[in-house]
Amino acid sequence: MATLESITQSLAGLSITPSASVTHAETNSPASWREALLATTSAPASFELIKTLVYKPKTAKTATPVPVIVIAREETETSSSALGKKLNLKELRLASEDLLSDFFALDKNSLSVLSLTSQTFPKVVTVIDASIASSSSTFAIHALSSSATVFLSGQDIISYLQKLETDEVKVQEIDFASLKSDVAAAPSKAAAKEKDDAKIEGAIQIAIGVKKEADFSAWYQSVLIKADMLEYYSVSGCYILRPWSYSMWEEIQDWFNKKIKAMGVQNVYFPMLVSQKVLEREKDHIEGFSPEVAWVTRAGSSDLEEPVALRPTSETVMYPYYAKWIKSHRDLPLKLNQWNNVVRWEFKHPQPFLRTREFLWQEGHTAHLTKAEADKEVLEILDLYRRVYEELLAVPVIPGIKSEKEKFAGALYTTTIEGFVPTSGRGIQAATSHCLGQNFSRPEMFNIVVEDPNDASGQGKTYAWQNSWGLSTRTIGVMTMVHGDNQGLVLPPRVASVQAIVVPCGVTAKTSDEDRAKINNACDDLAKSLIDAGIRAKADLREGYTPGYKFNDWEQKGVPLRLEIGPNDLAKQQTLTVRRDTGAKAPVALADLAATIPKMLETIQGDMFQRALAEYNAHVKEVTRWEDFVPTLDNKCIAVIPWCEREACEDDIKERSARASAEQQDERAPSAGAKSLAIPFNQERWTPLKLGETKCVGCGQEAKRWTMFGRSY
Amino acid sequence: MATLESITQSLAGLSITPSASVTHAETNSPASWREALLATTSAPASFELIKTLVYKPKTAKTATPVPVIVIAREETETSSSALGKKLNLKELRLASEDLLSDFFALDKNSLSVLSLTSQTFPKVVTVIDASIASSSSTFAIHALSSSATVFLSGQDIISYLQKLETDEVKVQEIDFASLKSDVAAAPSKAAAKEKDDAKIEGAIQIAIGVKKEADFSAWYQSVLIKADMLEYYSVSGCYILRPWSYSMWEEIQDWFNKKIKAMGVQNVYFPMLVSQKVLEREKDHIEGFSPEVAWVTRAGSSDLEEPVALRPTSETVMYPYYAKWIKSHRDLPLKLNQWNNVVRWEFKHPQPFLRTREFLWQEGHTAHLTKAEADKEVLEILDLYRRVYEELLAVPVIPGIKSEKEKFAGALYTTTIEGFVPTSGRGIQAATSHCLGQNFSRPEMFNIVVEDPNDASGQGKTYAWQNSWGLSTRTIGVMTMVHGDNQGLVLPPRVASVQAIVVPCGVTAKTSDEDRAKINNACDDLAKSLIDAGIRAKADLREGYTPGYKFNDWEQKGVPLRLEIGPNDLAKQQTLTVRRDTGAKAPVALADLAATIPKMLETIQGDMFQRALAEYNAHVKEVTRWEDFVPTLDNKCIAVIPWCEREACEDDIKERSARASAEQQDERAPSAGAKSLAIPFNQERWTPLKLGETKCVGCGQEAKRWTMFGRSY
Repeated sequence: MATLESITQSLAGLSITPSASVTHAETNSPASWREALLATTSAPASFELIKTLVYKPKTAKTATPVPVIVIAREETETSSSALGKKLNLKELRLASEDLLSDFFALDKNSLSVLSLTSQTFPKVVTVIDASIASSSSTFAIHALSSSATVFLSGQDIISYLQKLETDEVKVQEIDFASLKSDVAAAPSKAAAKEKDDAKIEGAIQIAIGVKKEADFSAWYQSVLIKADMLEYYSVSGCYILRPWSYSMWEEIQDWFNKKIKAMGVQNVYFPMLVSQKVLEREKDHIEGFSPEVAWVTRAGSSDLEEPVALRPTSETVMYPYYAKWIKSHRDLPLKLNQWNNVVRWEFKHPQPFLRTREFLWQEGHTAHLTKAEADKEVLEILDLYRRVYEELLAVPVIPGIKSEKEKFAGALYTTTIEGFVPTSGRGIQAATSHCLGQNFSRPEMFNIVVEDPNDASGQGKTYAWQNSWGLSTRTIGVMTMVHGDNQGLVLPPRVASVQAIVVPCGVTAKTSDEDRAKINNACDDLAKSLIDAGIRAKADLREGYTPGYKFNDWEQKGVPLRLEIGPNDLAKQQTLTVRRDTGAKAPVALADLAATIPKMLETIQGDMFQRALAEYNAHVKEVTRWEDFVPTLDNKCIAVIPWCEREACEDDIKERSARASAEQQDERAPSAGAKSLAIPFNQERWTPLKLGETKCVGCGQEAKRWTMFGRSY
Repeated sequence: MATLESITQSLAGLSITPSASVTHAETNSPASWREALLATTSAPASFELIKTLVYKPKTAKTATPVPVIVIAREETETSSSALGKKLNLKELRLASEDLLSDFFALDKNSLSVLSLTSQTFPKVVTVIDASIASSSSTFAIHALSSSATVFLSGQDIISYLQKLETDEVKVQEIDFASLKSDVAAAPSKAAAKEKDDAKIEGAIQIAIGVKKEADFSAWYQSVLIKADMLEYYSVSGCYILRPWSYSMWEEIQDWFNKKIKAMGVQNVYFPMLVSQKVLEREKDHIEGFSPEVAWVTRAGSSDLEEPVALRPTSETVMYPYYAKWIKSHRDLPLKLNQWNNVVRWEFKHPQPFLRTREFLWQEGHTAHLTKAEADKEVLEILDLYRRVYEELLAVPVIPGIKSEKEKFAGALYTTTIEGFVPTSGRGIQAATSHCLGQNFSRPEMFNIVVEDPNDASGQGKTYAWQNSWGLSTRTIGVMTMVHGDNQGLVLPPRVASVQAIVVPCGVTAKTSDEDRAKINNACDDLAKSLIDAGIRAKADLREGYTPGYKFNDWEQKGVPLRLEIGPNDLAKQQTLTVRRDTGAKAPVALADLAATIPKMLETIQGDMFQRALAEYNAHVKEVTRWEDFVPTLDNKCIAVIPWCEREACEDDIKERSARASAEQQDERAPSAGAKSLAIPFNQERWTPLKLGETKCVGCGQEAKRWTMFGRSY
């Protein structure tokens, strides 16, 4: 097999220098390829994948078919029927692996434009996506291997192919976007064009580079990386939380710890490893988790006698000990919490913060004497979760109860706060608080039992009423998606590790050293006086960067407030404040800072929440006819419907809405079918249901309550 | 095979009721049996193991040998030669597995007194350890299986055997302690007697029940469990940290986080899972860890393509990203820290907090431009570690540098603070701060390189100088061992989650409800006013417990200060204070509390440190002749010797001191050989070495520095 080095050398012979070349984990799909590249330390910060497709036209049995090689951007839709029409070839079909290995001695995961050589090129029809030539992107190309990649410009790819051209055989440039619009008329027809539009014109190198509205997934990834929130990692589905995001988790921890400790909850640490026997104790519970459980089977060079699991959650880890510790009703309530890592080996496409194989969370586990006490706590905790989102992250949520189908595996009932991501129109489960009832405490389970102090006979026993509740680093992902914009992250002041950044301005090459020092000192003093006023402030006195570069840098990282000081400001003893969320500028006298800046930060916090709330409210639609259901989803809204609350109906709604959906189906994307998100506690918000009259929108049976349905993460 | 139920039934037939009967993991040694029992939720809080030994005497070839069955306490030394003499039998040898299965149809791990039946009893000689009958312990006995145990009293065991006696065949009671003293004279000869003495006479049920000086290991285990610090867990080597210990870890975290953040260190979170390739990047490093690495090989029901490891530490996890993030000298220093769990699959006998398979720690990883900066930070961090031990935990430590043999795998040098456990006379590595030099940054490793800003040519490159440093929950174990006493835990006030407990006293059955309420209210008010004064105080108003019970309970849990209020105190408007560390009592006027109590707590903190320091100092002995070396260790001291600092000499010292040691060798115990603990920074403390003259105590070559050698954990 060709080594990366020999490929680089032969490209050098053609005067083509890759911007980077890397080896990485084996890949077998675009998703895994992208992930593998992001996990390397030397791939460019932003790039696009190039796909290479090989088609075989239908020919007479005796004729040798001439393969058609299509080199296109990953995002370009390459319709084989349209292509066949254009090339006047019948029934183009993707070539078999056999044909690939016959022709190129390569499998489909290793194939690329570099597989074309002076030997093979004349024997095939080569088609190139016309948009490649004009794009300024850096493109990833398989280096004749599924575990090696070179990065080339569009022009490099064109030159490579042009050097292979002969008098007889030329490369064919095809504009797939217009080709497709000639053929079909699906709502997603302009996708490739839109993706191209997503690139922000004239964006300087450090900016996000892609529009939130146009390619949300690429935008999200770009914001996280460029704001130094996150780094991709060499084990798929795991991510590095950098200080910029981890500090937000610390803010959330501090706040939540204070609140739960005031409720009498104590922190503990239970082991991460669970024996199979213990893990599988509760049947419903383990059925919910077992496909995702990771198993340790070996230590050093020895196989373990019995494999042990990494906790996906700790109910079965903890409750045997609850049974041991709870011997009398005087031992109740028992309220324990732990901050830890859990592992759920998701096989779906992972997404930073939202769906990861290891994540950080807190899990609270409490046991009570009565159902009433347990019920009360479930809601108290849910309200703390609501406050984490609304008061710290400025993200509105709607509290409610989950349907039977969507409740936690093993719970009596699950309460939830549901968030909303306007750009994708999807709901997102923000946090859940479960009442487990006596499902885990009953005698055939963990047998958590005490004498009933309220039983006059003194003989009665009662099984503990249990709750469990969890909040994870998903919080940070939701906050990013809701508030971020085309300049990058936008942070709510209460969780920002830097709330105000002070930048010296108006300094030019002509500025005297003395004046420069004056301005820098003024910035430094300003930052210090803000810190004294209890604000997390910082002066950016880095040498060798322009103010414009610094503005961009801190905007990208979402710092809520920028304070500029130049010679004129200094003369007037003022600073120019610039809000990250609105861009609004206002001069503030230096003397007023200690009073003004904290207020401005609170205003920003409040405004961010109100804007997000208005957006959420505008996207929650009362729907009373099935005909309006899918169009509501397609309009990026949540549908609130009168619902019968039957599981069969929920399954049916999911299946029918997936089928009817006009949204493009992508194996990597979350499902297009709608599921129930929550039955909101506040039913008064919608037109009163007439019990016995109002019908379920899904099935026409009697409706019970208004229920939120939507596509979700 | 007999089920546990049928055994319980047949015992019931003999009017014997086990205090508990449990099934558990398979066991094949006393250590694993004890561990398995502790991991169950229904074993008694304290118990002793019973061992059952089968001997075969030498007989004429034609004669059938009569097996000798010995039923003894696990801790009793049963010398076969002494026993043979006593029974007048020649050359008693442990019987083969074949004989066991012929006679009892059981393997040695399932055998117990219950294996003796009316069929087998007359065919064997049965010997019972005389100390069983008089002991008040609960004894664990294999229920004809290595995975089932019943708990019986000594009297139960005796009655069981007596019912088997016939006119011809009786049980022989033998006092092994006196038997042994007749035969041999080893320093450990009185061990069984001592272990018995370890039980504290008349100790009430909730007390520790075993003396620290007499059976340190049982004492440690008992303190941890009875003080609600820790619970044993169903996966061997993993333990549950209960709120009483976890809150200390939170205190340490808070303190240390503030200090390192002030140094510019930022917290992050890197994934727990590591690919094999990344883990094995640094050869020395991985050689140090690979025997202990746990591997995940399966998720759900699918085998992973490539196994992934659970981090034993994060150097190789983090440094590929350091190479990516550090592009310029302006990116230095990079100072990151994480609080996380790591897994090291120790195969040695685990010990709570000190040697566990999963543990909590912080690991700091920093990169610097120059060696001078790295060197400076290594010591700054080491000093913070010293302060955690000395200022928070009141545990004295000695800072120094590790020998080449004992340094961290992959480090340039390792600095350490060494603690000391007086009861065992062993040193303990309390925390380490490593300078990794350029071992991980050099080009063939992670290639963490920047342009050298100090190179005039502008061409020079320099590789980052790196440090890593860690502090773990071992802190809590060391604190327990150093300060605990025969009443239980003794907590230094600064880490105690309850610093002062207020207990109502002098309330009898005759006390009127009104007076009772008055006293309770006074206690409650007192606790509240202490809390207002910034003290972590609590009033113990539990109904149904006597003051004596409460005193014991809080003493056991180590609360630094008890405040009693009875009717007389109330009349005098005072409270009686009782110090946990000294037992000293003093009345304090209620009006003076806010001023007095904080001072008392500081005094306790200071006194505890000073006492521990004096004890440490008294056990660090200057040794200049090899003849004094092992006796010093045997006197439970650390030997400080002039040393050559050669690895071969260190190996030799370890081997010779192990051989010469008079200490009893136990496979479960840490090694009896001495290793180098640290070369103390403060060399002035000992007689000045004459370089070129003073010889190494180990080998006679030239000595370089005074070095601490000792047995250790």
